[in-house]
Amino acid sequence: MNSPNPTHNAHAQSWVTSANVAGCDFPIQNLPFSVFRRAGSNEAFRGGVAIGDQVIDMAQVARTACLDGLAQAAAENCARPALNDFFAMGPKAWKALRHSLFELLEKAFYGPKVDALRGCLIPQSEVEFTVPTAMGDYTDFYTSIDHARNIGKMIRPDDPVSSNFQWMPIAYHGRVSSIGVSGQSFRRPMGQAMPPGASAPVYGPCARLDYELELGVYIGQGNAQGEPIALADAEPHIFGICLLNDWSARDIQFWEMAPLGPFLGKNFCTTISPWIVTMEALEPYRQAWNRPANEPQPLAYLDSPANRAQGALDISLEVLLETDKLRAEGKGPARLSGTSFKHQYWSVAQMVTHHTMGGCNLRSGDLLGSGTISGPGEGEAGAMIELTYGGSKPMPLGNGETRGFLQDGDAVILRGWCEKPGYARIGFGESKGTILPAIGK
Amino acid sequence: MNSPNPTHNAHAQSWVTSANVAGCDFPIQNLPFSVFRRAGSNEAFRGGVAIGDQVIDMAQVARTACLDGLAQAAAENCARPALNDFFAMGPKAWKALRHSLFELLEKAFYGPKVDALRGCLIPQSEVEFTVPTAMGDYTDFYTSIDHARNIGKMIRPDDPVSSNFQWMPIAYHGRVSSIGVSGQSFRRPMGQAMPPGASAPVYGPCARLDYELELGVYIGQGNAQGEPIALADAEPHIFGICLLNDWSARDIQFWEMAPLGPFLGKNFCTTISPWIVTMEALEPYRQAWNRPANEPQPLAYLDSPANRAQGALDISLEVLLETDKLRAEGKGPARLSGTSFKHQYWSVAQMVTHHTMGGCNLRSGDLLGSGTISGPGEGEAGAMIELTYGGSKPMPLGNGETRGFLQDGDAVILRGWCEKPGYARIGFGESKGTILPAIGK
Repeated sequence: MNSPNPTHNAHAQSWVTSANVAGCDFPIQNLPFSVFRRAGSNEAFRGGVAIGDQVIDMAQVARTACLDGLAQAAAENCARPALNDFFAMGPKAWKALRHSLFELLEKAFYGPKVDALRGCLIPQSEVEFTVPTAMGDYTDFYTSIDHARNIGKMIRPDDPVSSNFQWMPIAYHGRVSSIGVSGQSFRRPMGQAMPPGASAPVYGPCARLDYELELGVYIGQGNAQGEPIALADAEPHIFGICLLNDWSARDIQFWEMAPLGPFLGKNFCTTISPWIVTMEALEPYRQAWNRPANEPQPLAYLDSPANRAQGALDISLEVLLETDKLRAEGKGPARLSGTSFKHQYWSVAQMVTHHTMGGCNLRSGDLLGSGTISGPGEGEAGAMIELTYGGSKPMPLGNGETRGFLQDGDAVILRGWCEKPGYARIGFGESKGTILPAIGK
Repeated sequence: MNSPNPTHNAHAQSWVTSANVAGCDFPIQNLPFSVFRRAGSNEAFRGGVAIGDQVIDMAQVARTACLDGLAQAAAENCARPALNDFFAMGPKAWKALRHSLFELLEKAFYGPKVDALRGCLIPQSEVEFTVPTAMGDYTDFYTSIDHARNIGKMIRPDDPVSSNFQWMPIAYHGRVSSIGVSGQSFRRPMGQAMPPGASAPVYGPCARLDYELELGVYIGQGNAQGEPIALADAEPHIFGICLLNDWSARDIQFWEMAPLGPFLGKNFCTTISPWIVTMEALEPYRQAWNRPANEPQPLAYLDSPANRAQGALDISLEVLLETDKLRAEGKGPARLSGTSFKHQYWSVAQMVTHHTMGGCNLRSGDLLGSGTISGPGEGEAGAMIELTYGGSKPMPLGNGETRGFLQDGDAVILRGWCEKPGYARIGFGESKGTILPAIGK
């Protein structure tokens, strides 16, 4: 039997006291990674680890004498402006660094190493973040059957879920260049749309701007071209998970997407949270996934007892909307929906295995989007088009406003966290993006 | 009136005598760019320019005193292991370098600078190439109406060309990680396919492996997110063009591609030619494109008199097939088809403008695939699935062999060139890729 993982000990507390406050996203049991610098400065971006309301500056850590061996080598790779080299070191190095930081941050620990580490802390309120890897490719999956069903009913009422959905984690390649971190603003896209009944498309600002609640999965170590990653080997290739908003221009998307898939309807912007929560921190929140016996069972290459027993992740998720009017009224954001990642039809390991099965190579720092995460219940849909039935039933925001689709000035905030009895609650921080008026307006 | 471009002078010859041989792809009027090193060495990759059967080593050029000013600065950026920084300098720098090299390479030129340049030549037979840019994103278009019609007839006989095709250059994002240069081999992909009439998919080696004849378009200077490139401004953003083989696993592709487009059917491998022919070298081969009056005319953002007058490029293209049997017989490759890029429905400038219209940012060194290039006539199709009507009418190769789809050991060779009276013939070299037995076989 494995000895229990000390970083999962719910009773552990840190001398960084803000980490011990109930409801804090970044207790000592989390220790997620980002890339940051002091806000507004010309400093080099470098890796950071969250503890409470502080960032541990990994470039500074690498220069001190508070780590040894593999943990020190890992810290040195974290000091770079992108985390690819750290990810490429693999799970042993990730664990060495995370466990060393955990030990040094624990309340009971003291001495010169703690003093050194204290000198590496910067308040999160004083930093700005950037995309944490030099990302070679970004792939967006489509793995929520509730989302597929909700959307499919609008497009193909007779056959809502396409026949391949239950046989494979469907995916398409997305755009890397327009991925930004939480806090960003972007212009409403211009585009072509075909109005119902029209004989020619119209060109203008997107009229059906939407968000998609997703998680982003970072690839740790990659694979060589022509050498697929078997399901049994997939987990150690995954470094961690962030929040991801796959902004979608529905009118543009639906006109362009047959036969080759979404393009301009998606590639104008994608917003990720800056913090990557490690798979090690998420381990206590793994659970079995359920494939009803009357549904197709996965083909052998996508199936294993371990994946069935541990493939799902119970990550609670929530979408909030800030509007100009709510801001003017001094009110907080309105809650649009909430669900859990545990309902997803395919696991992250299955995504990795399917992606590489034909020989495609993943590289360290690549990002996989989970696809929109919608749950089975009312109010669990991860996109406005589902919540409002294609805009036909606008949602009340509680202050007299309603939304069918998003308006200029709206900001969408994604939040995520894990909690269960006997374990510390850990959080993802947030992904927030704000819509500016259309290009040229 | 502009003075004629000296690099288009058909009578110019070089003291590199192999460049003056009739039929040579790389006369002094071409001067395409690549990234290379001595074959089998551990040297750093660096930029190279082709002249005859030689490569001009740009790292060596940058160290000599044979260039000045902007041309020297450009050469210094070409000396790096990727051409992104050179591309980002823009058309003035590209032209300064190309014209300086042209002058120094001309037959009549002599003196110490020519001696210095002579010391920078390496025979092409002694080098190996790599992907010439650190590619941020790769987008594959779908812009041949003959290809769309040929494929569409097989999938949707009642409505072969999807209704959006004539309104926009359709595209989807492709995979960067699996792009390789000519000379590469790759394993036949494994994958899921749904046999006709079956109720469950099968997993196994791709049974319908195909190629697609395409051109690759390199982005020179990019654009900021949210700032589209207008059609009138698009041309200077394009650096040049290469050959591109978009290998396709048809059985895998057709089962997976609804509703989000091709994924594993394409992302196992893409093969490009190492040489990028500049837009300046291609200028004499521009011509008007023809949009019949009874077809939809482009929306205003995709239309301009200049684009109509000059948007098409008459690039002759050819596909050849080498087989194990042809090799054993000592025979050269069999010709599968040939056509010209001039038939394409959308121009490269229209691709750039449409891509950025919604706010998506292109970056220096990004690659756009043209989509399969099929011409209107018999034998002008750019993929085997079209030439053989989905494999039902296998093609004879002239030695008793036939092919419906590609077999292990087959090598597909793409070639391209431009010629017209009064101008020097220029060529693209070739893109060659060889199929190895399936993964795990």
